[in-house]
Amino acid sequence: METVLHLISGDGDEQETTLNIARNLLDDESGSIDEVAVVAQAGGIEAVTADGEYGDRVRSLLDDGVSFKGCSNTLEAFGLEEADLVDGVETVPEGAVEVTRLQDEGYAYMRP
Amino acid sequence: METVLHLISGDGDEQETTLNIARNLLDDESGSIDEVAVVAQAGGIEAVTADGEYGDRVRSLLDDGVSFKGCSNTLEAFGLEEADLVDGVETVPEGAVEVTRLQDEGYAYMRP
Amino acid sequence: METVLHLISGDGDEQETTLNIARNLLDDESGSIDEVAVVAQAGGIEAVTADGEYGDRVRSLLDDGVSFKGCSNTLEAFGLEEADLVDGVETVPEGAVEVTRLQDEGYAYMRP
Repeated sequence: METVLHLISGDGDEQETTLNIARNLLDDESGSIDEVAVVAQAGGIEAVTADGEYGDRVRSLLDDGVSFKGCSNTLEAFGLEEADLVDGVETVPEGAVEVTRLQDEGYAYMRP
Repeated sequence: METVLHLISGDGDEQETTLNIARNLLDDESGSIDEVAVVAQAGGIEAVTADGEYGDRVRSLLDDGVSFKGCSNTLEAFGLEEADLVDGVETVPEGAVEVTRLQDEGYAYMRP
Repeated sequence: METVLHLISGDGDEQETTLNIARNLLDDESGSIDEVAVVAQAGGIEAVTADGEYGDRVRSLLDDGVSFKGCSNTLEAFGLEEADLVDGVETVPEGAVEVTRLQDEGYAYMRP
């Protein structure tokens, strides 16, 4: 099974819960989770910036196979560039389209 | 593909993000999004009232093809009537049933 | 149709909305909702504790056929035990895996 986490909130607690859940899905002992994707947009984009509070945790999740996608519309709105994101975070034109596409492919959705 | 946005929060930032995402889905240049629906209930109902802060933006999204559904259970709980909503916002008996129905039809779900 | 509600927020208003929606889904007169599940994790776990503010409402929903699952990872992180939860709330190793599994089975997802 596959899961997409929507990292859309600017709230630090909700961002932290999202990253915790990504880790718990990776660590799941039942082995039923094959893919974990995180789509960051709106206030959630800050959580995937290289200099942000959660930069190291995002790097660790990337290393362990979680895919991260940042929303280009959000980058533009926030005056950020792709280079401001943690290395390995891909960009997509619009996060909500990516979330739709992943669900269409069969991913379960979660918004912590 | 089709997307339903759940406008359920009374938080102004979350309401605004929901309307921004509806617009971004409409504007998506890949042309992969065929339908965008917004289901408003609980605190989110205020965002679709005619006199609310976002009335004009809701009107603009309606004009451009987004469908809006307001929850009748919420209207009753908030002492509102259908006439208090932006013209063109339809009502459904219970928003959560409508969100379930749309996902059952294949819509992707998002809760900004 | 079947619906899973994600009780993941520590915010009291969001917890209350989640329980209201569970009730409204049960009461739906169209009869289109066959199953309602609530998965409690992270800050949402407090809403399903026996001594919590919403204990009686959770008991009433359980009596009326809603299933509740509490996340064991969260219990451990919060220093809680299964015995601290309302009688009848089951536990699952990881709430997010359960939410994924239910969507994979065809449940619609909602995060109030």
